Amino acid sequence: MGDVFPKVKVAAVHAAAPFLDRDAGVDKTCRLIGEAAQEGARLVVFPETFIPGYPVWIWTHTPATGSPYFLRLFANSVTVPSEATDRIGAAARAAGAFVVVGISERDGGTLYNTLLYFDDSGRIVGKHRKLVPTCVERTVWGQGDGSGLKLVETPFGKLGGLICWEHSMDLARYALASQGEQIHVAAWPAGSAVTHDPSSGVFDDLTEAAARHHAAANQCFVINVQSCLDAETVRDLGFEGRPEMVREGGGWSAIIAPTGQILAGPNRDKEAILYAELDLAMIAQFKYVSDSIGHYARPDVLQLVVNFEPQEIMVARGSPNSDYPVEDPE
Amino acid sequence: MGDVFPKVKVAAVHAAAPFLDRDAGVDKTCRLIGEAAQEGARLVVFPETFIPGYPVWIWTHTPATGSPYFLRLFANSVTVPSEATDRIGAAARAAGAFVVVGISERDGGTLYNTLLYFDDSGRIVGKHRKLVPTCVERTVWGQGDGSGLKLVETPFGKLGGLICWEHSMDLARYALASQGEQIHVAAWPAGSAVTHDPSSGVFDDLTEAAARHHAAANQCFVINVQSCLDAETVRDLGFEGRPEMVREGGGWSAIIAPTGQILAGPNRDKEAILYAELDLAMIAQFKYVSDSIGHYARPDVLQLVVNFEPQEIMVARGSPNSDYPVEDPE
Amino acid sequence: MGDVFPKVKVAAVHAAAPFLDRDAGVDKTCRLIGEAAQEGARLVVFPETFIPGYPVWIWTHTPATGSPYFLRLFANSVTVPSEATDRIGAAARAAGAFVVVGISERDGGTLYNTLLYFDDSGRIVGKHRKLVPTCVERTVWGQGDGSGLKLVETPFGKLGGLICWEHSMDLARYALASQGEQIHVAAWPAGSAVTHDPSSGVFDDLTEAAARHHAAANQCFVINVQSCLDAETVRDLGFEGRPEMVREGGGWSAIIAPTGQILAGPNRDKEAILYAELDLAMIAQFKYVSDSIGHYARPDVLQLVVNFEPQEIMVARGSPNSDYPVEDPE
Amino acid sequence: MGDVFPKVKVAAVHAAAPFLDRDAGVDKTCRLIGEAAQEGARLVVFPETFIPGYPVWIWTHTPATGSPYFLRLFANSVTVPSEATDRIGAAARAAGAFVVVGISERDGGTLYNTLLYFDDSGRIVGKHRKLVPTCVERTVWGQGDGSGLKLVETPFGKLGGLICWEHSMDLARYALASQGEQIHVAAWPAGSAVTHDPSSGVFDDLTEAAARHHAAANQCFVINVQSCLDAETVRDLGFEGRPEMVREGGGWSAIIAPTGQILAGPNRDKEAILYAELDLAMIAQFKYVSDSIGHYARPDVLQLVVNFEPQEIMVARGSPNSDYPVEDPE
Amino acid sequence: MGDVFPKVKVAAVHAAAPFLDRDAGVDKTCRLIGEAAQEGARLVVFPETFIPGYPVWIWTHTPATGSPYFLRLFANSVTVPSEATDRIGAAARAAGAFVVVGISERDGGTLYNTLLYFDDSGRIVGKHRKLVPTCVERTVWGQGDGSGLKLVETPFGKLGGLICWEHSMDLARYALASQGEQIHVAAWPAGSAVTHDPSSGVFDDLTEAAARHHAAANQCFVINVQSCLDAETVRDLGFEGRPEMVREGGGWSAIIAPTGQILAGPNRDKEAILYAELDLAMIAQFKYVSDSIGHYARPDVLQLVVNFEPQEIMVARGSPNSDYPVEDPE
Amino acid sequence: MGDVFPKVKVAAVHAAAPFLDRDAGVDKTCRLIGEAAQEGARLVVFPETFIPGYPVWIWTHTPATGSPYFLRLFANSVTVPSEATDRIGAAARAAGAFVVVGISERDGGTLYNTLLYFDDSGRIVGKHRKLVPTCVERTVWGQGDGSGLKLVETPFGKLGGLICWEHSMDLARYALASQGEQIHVAAWPAGSAVTHDPSSGVFDDLTEAAARHHAAANQCFVINVQSCLDAETVRDLGFEGRPEMVREGGGWSAIIAPTGQILAGPNRDKEAILYAELDLAMIAQFKYVSDSIGHYARPDVLQLVVNFEPQEIMVARGSPNSDYPVEDPE
Repeated sequence: MGDVFPKVKVAAVHAAAPFLDRDAGVDKTCRLIGEAAQEGARLVVFPETFIPGYPVWIWTHTPATGSPYFLRLFANSVTVPSEATDRIGAAARAAGAFVVVGISERDGGTLYNTLLYFDDSGRIVGKHRKLVPTCVERTVWGQGDGSGLKLVETPFGKLGGLICWEHSMDLARYALASQGEQIHVAAWPAGSAVTHDPSSGVFDDLTEAAARHHAAANQCFVINVQSCLDAETVRDLGFEGRPEMVREGGGWSAIIAPTGQILAGPNRDKEAILYAELDLAMIAQFKYVSDSIGHYARPDVLQLVVNFEPQEIMVARGSPNSDYPVEDPE
Repeated sequence: MGDVFPKVKVAAVHAAAPFLDRDAGVDKTCRLIGEAAQEGARLVVFPETFIPGYPVWIWTHTPATGSPYFLRLFANSVTVPSEATDRIGAAARAAGAFVVVGISERDGGTLYNTLLYFDDSGRIVGKHRKLVPTCVERTVWGQGDGSGLKLVETPFGKLGGLICWEHSMDLARYALASQGEQIHVAAWPAGSAVTHDPSSGVFDDLTEAAARHHAAANQCFVINVQSCLDAETVRDLGFEGRPEMVREGGGWSAIIAPTGQILAGPNRDKEAILYAELDLAMIAQFKYVSDSIGHYARPDVLQLVVNFEPQEIMVARGSPNSDYPVEDPE
Repeated sequence: MGDVFPKVKVAAVHAAAPFLDRDAGVDKTCRLIGEAAQEGARLVVFPETFIPGYPVWIWTHTPATGSPYFLRLFANSVTVPSEATDRIGAAARAAGAFVVVGISERDGGTLYNTLLYFDDSGRIVGKHRKLVPTCVERTVWGQGDGSGLKLVETPFGKLGGLICWEHSMDLARYALASQGEQIHVAAWPAGSAVTHDPSSGVFDDLTEAAARHHAAANQCFVINVQSCLDAETVRDLGFEGRPEMVREGGGWSAIIAPTGQILAGPNRDKEAILYAELDLAMIAQFKYVSDSIGHYARPDVLQLVVNFEPQEIMVARGSPNSDYPVEDPE
Repeated sequence: MGDVFPKVKVAAVHAAAPFLDRDAGVDKTCRLIGEAAQEGARLVVFPETFIPGYPVWIWTHTPATGSPYFLRLFANSVTVPSEATDRIGAAARAAGAFVVVGISERDGGTLYNTLLYFDDSGRIVGKHRKLVPTCVERTVWGQGDGSGLKLVETPFGKLGGLICWEHSMDLARYALASQGEQIHVAAWPAGSAVTHDPSSGVFDDLTEAAARHHAAANQCFVINVQSCLDAETVRDLGFEGRPEMVREGGGWSAIIAPTGQILAGPNRDKEAILYAELDLAMIAQFKYVSDSIGHYARPDVLQLVVNFEPQEIMVARGSPNSDYPVEDPE
Repeated sequence: MGDVFPKVKVAAVHAAAPFLDRDAGVDKTCRLIGEAAQEGARLVVFPETFIPGYPVWIWTHTPATGSPYFLRLFANSVTVPSEATDRIGAAARAAGAFVVVGISERDGGTLYNTLLYFDDSGRIVGKHRKLVPTCVERTVWGQGDGSGLKLVETPFGKLGGLICWEHSMDLARYALASQGEQIHVAAWPAGSAVTHDPSSGVFDDLTEAAARHHAAANQCFVINVQSCLDAETVRDLGFEGRPEMVREGGGWSAIIAPTGQILAGPNRDKEAILYAELDLAMIAQFKYVSDSIGHYARPDVLQLVVNFEPQEIMVARGSPNSDYPVEDPE
Repeated sequence: MGDVFPKVKVAAVHAAAPFLDRDAGVDKTCRLIGEAAQEGARLVVFPETFIPGYPVWIWTHTPATGSPYFLRLFANSVTVPSEATDRIGAAARAAGAFVVVGISERDGGTLYNTLLYFDDSGRIVGKHRKLVPTCVERTVWGQGDGSGLKLVETPFGKLGGLICWEHSMDLARYALASQGEQIHVAAWPAGSAVTHDPSSGVFDDLTEAAARHHAAANQCFVINVQSCLDAETVRDLGFEGRPEMVREGGGWSAIIAPTGQILAGPNRDKEAILYAELDLAMIAQFKYVSDSIGHYARPDVLQLVVNFEPQEIMVARGSPNSDYPVEDPE
């Protein structure tokens, strides 16, 4: 059955982002891609907004006291494409691996919480912007649209991904499943390190529930990857010695089978690269019990409508390009 | 906030069903309703097909060797309404409690895996038939339709429910959530006791993931209730002394808060009634972070279409009821 | 399971009708009801237009040469209710049996090919007029409407029936099935005796196929009953000694289980009363494999619309009954 | 009348499938197409799921003990289109014949019990998925929708088909008839060979009743074709020397005229190709007596509603296809 | 068949009315009833407004010059009941015959063109007022309502009738037919005698066409009866010697069979009583070909709605009877 | 009044049909259209089922002995549209005339007794199928529905038509009248030539009564057209020299004014084309006396309900047309 069901080794990079430093973030990303490729990984996955790090201060500061951080975030966010994405692409090509990495993307005057997909030739093959930033995240990031809900075709299966609390959006998860998602990237920040927030205590549990549920409910592998915070970030935020506000470490990462079983991890609180070989025959085995978009669906009762269209604030009738000058002024 | 957000004490009955014995099942149901009411429960929830028990043999026998059990199931299934439902209604009224109980329902020549809802005056106020029986369950139960996806209004909130692996149907769960579900009944069989089936080992984990995920993703309480198997059932199935086929015990029950935290339980493998007081203010607290059908939804991108219409194989114009006799020969 | 599934002894009367003689036909009907009741039958079924016999001449004569027979048929057809039906009702009551008998019914100036149902107290409880008379039958009988497609409730199950080639109307058969038919009466003439017609050679085969198919496809018992022709009828038709035109005998009768198996008969070419005890538990057993109106139906794809309304050529507002005389001249 | 009513020679292939071996199944299919074409057949019909064979074990094993067979079935099922269907198409084109073949189809994670139609140029011209898998078949196959109820136009008439116990669905059969079906393919497995199942004893009788009834009731030819089991399959299933479980042989195949008469066969228990020349004038002859969708219909009383729409679990606005890569890093 | 189909001798009285002389008209009516009864007639039919004669002047005078005639008509019209109707009733009783007679009826300040029915005991059993007076008739008669479209039951069949050009109202004729009309009275004036009117030349032809058509189209007997004018009437109108205005004689009377064949008459221009014996078996014979309200009707396509309610200009809520004096003043 | 009331010359073709020979029938039809157009006719009307002739044998043979004729009728009936109708359309266009022609229409397996309307550009603009075939005609023709009761608009007035004994259906005639019918086509066979049938003697009289009555009752022109039988047809039927069975000749044709007066004809027993110029002002003149759908109607008492909907035995949701082929194997 090797012909029918491919196998692929994948890597989940549980790591701390160089805080608000795009170039250092790209450096670290490229280095870790290379390291994982050394171990044979054909798909390397990084956490939410790994470049240039998650904006922890939004949960611990007021808008006024947090604004200097915002300006640093704005300056260090990643334009697509740009030299930064070119460098990651080159690393992917060198490694012969697909790469999924979370970035804070800048498009004009708005930032987005974005997952960026590179194929093993280094080309950008997918981009998903978080549909609904969570709570106070709405102060730094805009909303994505349905164009980011499309799957990426790879030689080892159909690849999709969502960011953090998007996993609570049952319709968003099913939008991926409905296209035949086989490997799912679940990218999160180090939620359990932001101890000031009351939900930090249950963050790992909810992560695990969402990740295992998605795997089993939709018969796909889930590469769940969170970041951790390093001492430098805690210091930069002004919380050194105040673990009741923000602590070092954090994060819950694991690679999960379509049966909901954990293949690698869980890893918590420290940097690590988790590896697992995904045997897509496992999907077939579990489809015997349930195929959420086939024999276990009820399209006569329940149907999802997905708008994959990019949302444009202006629609041009006729060409929006200036036709002046119409002749050469020379 | 007591005026705005009601509180209610609820009970989850983790118990063994009198196997293929409708009358004994009704007896036990009525007795346990009374017991829970003694403890102050205003809502008492029973497992999947508690009357007359889950058809374990479908996983351990062939259709031919299982057929004698099927006829017993057919004969002991519950017609709605009937004397059996009248008795449960009377018990609910006597207890002053809402009751949700899983039954194998018989309608004509087809059985359904049904959740039946009684209000505290004993009336049947809701009925949900499992939309997609799982794997070999399809040999004993037909499919429900969307008419069973409606919520039940109670004085203490909007009540919904699903059965077993329906919790993997993201669209079905969201169909309930989209109506404002506040208390969710998750009814399952004692999956972990059917050891012959390879998925029995992960059954409890998937139960927990689904239940906690639904609570947090859709900001509702979840009353998760499974049954266990008693020695008599194991013996009746012919597996006494063969725990590698079917074992006594089984089941994972818990009452879960909208944050995903476990309020009562988990209880495993033995009979117990779990109690918790649900403070609906907890829903409001978590809505601050996420409201899956409000500020955390994206109707411009993702929309669910639900067909609540009953599906009829025959539409009658004019009355199909006989208008005879029209004369009297005397 | 005796409580759930009743048993009933039924009788299929394969007999020759007194040709175009209503009174003799009623006499014979009443006598045979008594005889079957002696054997314990609670349901006694007679062939198509047993009173006053099937109009064989329409297949062997032209309209002009057949018209004298038509006038005899017209004069001997049965008005409902009338003294003839009162007598049959009295026989049913005396026998304590339900009776289904085919008649040529007269309503105003039109005759109908009708099945008439009596309960065991002698009341008329159902009437079905053949929806589409077959080929040249259309010269003697009008068309029934959907009001005759309703089932008759009995203590031993839901009873329906169709006439002869109506069994080829898949929608008509399913209209009965969709209401939960449990015992089906299939009434036919002695088709195989009308040898002048080319289809007479395959008549018995098609009867058997239709009857067994309906039983199995819709999980009901079928009481298939045909008449035979006696020498007097052959002589009256002018075909004595011409068996290549019309022969004595004919008919194929049988009582068939929901599995399609033959419980009694087949009887051919001679008078006989077939008996069988119907155990309605057999229906439940076959519903395990198929329930044509439940788990084996697809209402989302296939739906039948039945117009049960009587079709009236005139709708009266106010009473059409004369309100005269209003005064008395004396 | 040769101009009005075409004639066509057809072949019904009663054969054993190479068990769970798609490639061998395609080989055998192509070889038999060629053989039938040598005899002049312009339409060649194969049994239900001839590629890669019927999943006999579902009737004789439990879900757990049958699961290894399921994975082999999954791996050997046929994707449409694929190299396997290309090869059958090429054989059809080489033979100058239309081909109807039963396959286990794989679409994503769900298998379907499918009839596939090729025209004589080798193109796929129709696909029907069984609407309701029977009893335990529901553990391996999903449900088709109404899009498979469309007829296939051929130079020799309108062609339709159903699978096995779908013939008990009166509405499904009439859905084909209502479109003017002239040649009907009835594809079944070797039901009488699965002796462990209690219905195996009556399987041939019900097949015959359904096939002959459909032919006569709807005035079409029926090519009824079943498979048989070879010794290798019985051995692979583990029932060598246990004929009370599964036996070699089985199957009832015949070619039937619109009058219900058998033109070729019946063939039982052994491999054979049945041939008959179908003279479509026979349809006209029987239409004189009955036209189930014309003069013998009662649309004012009975009407069928058919939903031919494909049922989709997700409706995409805009293209779900990725629009990446949009740039090239080189 | 004498029991089933009654026979009856009927009389059609083609006679001149005593012009505008109610008492003489009653005398002549009673005398002719007796004469017909002598011949064995059980039903005696008179022309339109035989009492007190047809208002010929409306066609030959202006409203102003005709007004003296109108006052005489008003004074000689018949109130129902009254001494005049009592006398006719007594004659009917004496004769043992049913009587149908045309009258100009006075009800308050309005006259009506009325057919009055007496049974053989002398009671009034039916009354029909012409629904639409023709052209200038509207200056003397008001409109009837649907209460006059009811049939009269007699021992020899169902009796209905219309007046003159009402026979052009297809719906009015069918309203009678739809109730099972067996004997139809067609009452007309002496149209062909009013030569001043251009349609007088075709009057007899249209009478015949309407009468024969109704008989055959609705399978009933038609007693078509017209009056003639005597010299006195012509003189009274002032047209003595001016036959181009109004002539003596006129009228076309006949008794017609359900086949359209003429049984008695036609009689023209002179007084005569036509007799025929009606054999109701003739209806049955023609019903073989056509039954306009049975096998030859299409209620699914064509349906007549008849409002039989009397039309009242005032509806009283509570009793309209004065409750004064409430006690007796004596 | 020439501006308001058009005049039109019309032709009634009383002719013998080439018996059971569609091509010859089309030839003759086209030739006679041309001939009538030469005479200036703008509307040319042919008898009932002129192509391919009326099935006389149904009145003189049994179903069995008549069946060889039926197959010839089936094969020679006209599909709409087809090459046959294209040719008639071309003749109409060449002639610049509207054409109404009776055909035996074939639709699938059922034949219909149809009137087909062509406009002067050759397009089919109307089709009426006889609602109730008469007596034994029911063995060869199915029933039309209300969709054929719609009028055809022409430059010279509103055109309707009925077939043979449909003229006895008062409601059908009024359904045309109620739409404002101005020119009525009454198409019949040569009834008086089928002497074996007892009603042949009165056939011409009833034709005349119906035609003249409809003209006067509903104030329209009637083009009454019957066919005759030629020697070849009599011989083909096997009745050469047996005029007591079927004779040559037959038919009664005439063109009738709204007053009931005969404008052309009557023609009997021989081929002829009758011509008349219809002056629609005659309608207005007679409306003075009576307007059956205006001042002479009583909608408060009498109302006709017409169902113009086509009656479909199957209602499709989604397209029933195959969407295959979807791929090309090359």
